[in-house]
Amino acid sequence: MEYRFSGRVLELKPSAIREIFKYAADPQVISLSAGNPAPEAFPIREISEISAKILAEHPVDVLQYGTTEGYAPLRQHLKTYLNEKLGIGTEQDGLIITSGAQQVMDLFAKSMLNEGDTVVCEAPSFIGALNTYRSFCGKLRGVPMEPDGISLEGLEQALKEEKRAKFIYTIPNFQNPTGTTMSLAKRRGMYALAKKYGVMILEDNPYGDLRFAGEDVPAIKSFDTEGIVLYAGTFSKVVAPGIRVGYAVGPKPVLQKMIVCKQGEDVHTNLWGQMLCDELMTNYDFEAHLRRLKGVYREKSKVAVDAMNRWLRPKITYLPIEGGLFFWCTLPDGVDMPAFVRRAIQNKVCVVPGNAFLTDDTAPCQSFRINYTTPTDENLVRGIQLLGETADSMIR
Amino acid sequence: MEYRFSGRVLELKPSAIREIFKYAADPQVISLSAGNPAPEAFPIREISEISAKILAEHPVDVLQYGTTEGYAPLRQHLKTYLNEKLGIGTEQDGLIITSGAQQVMDLFAKSMLNEGDTVVCEAPSFIGALNTYRSFCGKLRGVPMEPDGISLEGLEQALKEEKRAKFIYTIPNFQNPTGTTMSLAKRRGMYALAKKYGVMILEDNPYGDLRFAGEDVPAIKSFDTEGIVLYAGTFSKVVAPGIRVGYAVGPKPVLQKMIVCKQGEDVHTNLWGQMLCDELMTNYDFEAHLRRLKGVYREKSKVAVDAMNRWLRPKITYLPIEGGLFFWCTLPDGVDMPAFVRRAIQNKVCVVPGNAFLTDDTAPCQSFRINYTTPTDENLVRGIQLLGETADSMIR
Repeated sequence: MEYRFSGRVLELKPSAIREIFKYAADPQVISLSAGNPAPEAFPIREISEISAKILAEHPVDVLQYGTTEGYAPLRQHLKTYLNEKLGIGTEQDGLIITSGAQQVMDLFAKSMLNEGDTVVCEAPSFIGALNTYRSFCGKLRGVPMEPDGISLEGLEQALKEEKRAKFIYTIPNFQNPTGTTMSLAKRRGMYALAKKYGVMILEDNPYGDLRFAGEDVPAIKSFDTEGIVLYAGTFSKVVAPGIRVGYAVGPKPVLQKMIVCKQGEDVHTNLWGQMLCDELMTNYDFEAHLRRLKGVYREKSKVAVDAMNRWLRPKITYLPIEGGLFFWCTLPDGVDMPAFVRRAIQNKVCVVPGNAFLTDDTAPCQSFRINYTTPTDENLVRGIQLLGETADSMIR
Repeated sequence: MEYRFSGRVLELKPSAIREIFKYAADPQVISLSAGNPAPEAFPIREISEISAKILAEHPVDVLQYGTTEGYAPLRQHLKTYLNEKLGIGTEQDGLIITSGAQQVMDLFAKSMLNEGDTVVCEAPSFIGALNTYRSFCGKLRGVPMEPDGISLEGLEQALKEEKRAKFIYTIPNFQNPTGTTMSLAKRRGMYALAKKYGVMILEDNPYGDLRFAGEDVPAIKSFDTEGIVLYAGTFSKVVAPGIRVGYAVGPKPVLQKMIVCKQGEDVHTNLWGQMLCDELMTNYDFEAHLRRLKGVYREKSKVAVDAMNRWLRPKITYLPIEGGLFFWCTLPDGVDMPAFVRRAIQNKVCVVPGNAFLTDDTAPCQSFRINYTTPTDENLVRGIQLLGETADSMIR
């Protein structure tokens, strides 16, 4: 049988990150390449309690079909919570539950992108989202990152030039992969530019609750009086990713299209995960859980920083972070980054080459991404030491 | 803000079935319009036991990110199970776990359909799948159903005429909505035609295990030596739909494309549901569970048949079934079916008008679909009585 695939998947290729994961699966290799939250922060005891309770008290509600929009009590609680905590969600906005925030990217792209429409994104950015936009034949236009977030000059230039721009994709807090947080001024600037050029903003905020230092910066969605911003959130980093529960807050006409797409995609999100999150938010001290979680990330990030200062500097530099999962490390000019990553794998440590996060992954790049939250402290230190030794062997 | 949606969602409209569900949500109305499995067949005690066990013994495996292809033990067990039970899956085939079988429709359509490519389907057919194909701008070509399945003459004519046909979509067992089972001869005939015309078959089998009378008919996939058939299965009807766990068995090159799409869609299927199904299949007597479940459906279908014979016949006829969830009922010529369905809602009983399942839902249709598995026995009988009274008031 000769398979005649659609144009959209013919152009898709396995991502660089997936190739890396093959090596990362080798138990001999220390992986600093994942995007996993720290398992020691999972509220396992609470989840076990809640699971027993919902299966005893509401078994048919957990097991029967649910509505595409999501479990009604969770939607209501989340709406109130996000409004009080982040000041997001107006009368014109709705909220839907999705199968992880990844599905927000997918449903929004499916609802917005015709072949050749442009998504303006941070460069580098989250590869999972970029690949979703590619899968709907979207054109990606990258705008350089600065230490306080996207370059506004670059953004305006992109919006001027890209006549078919449909939306801006941004991760304003502890961006994946750079760890950068966008300043308030730039958030206001991005909003103003989106309004001026008539494009939407997809504000992806998986890591906002993982802030262990510094001050919260208001969400772009909190300025949104015109229905410009779709906000994506998730329980993957604050509860657990295996449950696959995310959500979107945005203009009702946009959510209506996304719901029709979700109906055809997975009917609804699994109810056990939804009911779990609802119970955690309403009958447990969710803020105390978040404080404990931030403590775990604060301690673990210190272990990483100490190790990087000892083993990587000054040859390899890194951007400081105030939260999130990642450090963005940069090799000196003239060092071949892909060769460094390959050599590191031979030395039994695995990181993600920075070009994987670019809109054009063949472009030159001197950086790589470290995840500090998945390995044990011991493996984290050992892995960073191995990276240092790899650098020493290549850089004189 | 003026929203500029993609062409594919601009053409989508809320389905007729969704409009009906608005009425069905009224607690005063008896709904015979759902597609839900019988809640009394859910293995609640076993699920509670397993949930406690996996959260106690493997909490991090349940809660952390998993692989896109699915939970490895479940994939392995299912592969062996399906091979032994149905004789499906060759060396050239793989198996992936999806978020319900609905996601198989979505991932396969995304991987195969360019705008304007044709899906040849049974007419009538499952509206959820048809809408997914529509969402990728697929053209639907319906082929009439006969009591033993699709018309093979109609199928060949469609394959001759539709130069851009990509695949045939079929539900061979207890088809939704007609309840019809395709004969072995027609299954072989469909396979031969697919081979002759170089198109694939998507064999959707959600109801195969719900046979309470008659003999099993071999799956089309069991003849598949050429990699023509993608087989979709699900735990929604044999365990529970709220867990959202389905699967696909098919040619590896096709699954590889679907995996890349799934990565961008929801990363992976929730692990609690996957681990639950794995435990149920391996450490419990799954075949005994299936026998108990068939018993529930056998008894419930008898209640429906007795009530239909008493209240509907001879004005309204129905097709006999040997399994599945649905009865396909037909009004006499000259009776306005949509008016009947509206009058029935006024009389506090809700069914799905048959035109909702057609590729052109404005085409004339004398039939409607009854689901007998969701309501209590009492409501089932009362609902059928109300349908009979509605018919009496319209048909002299």
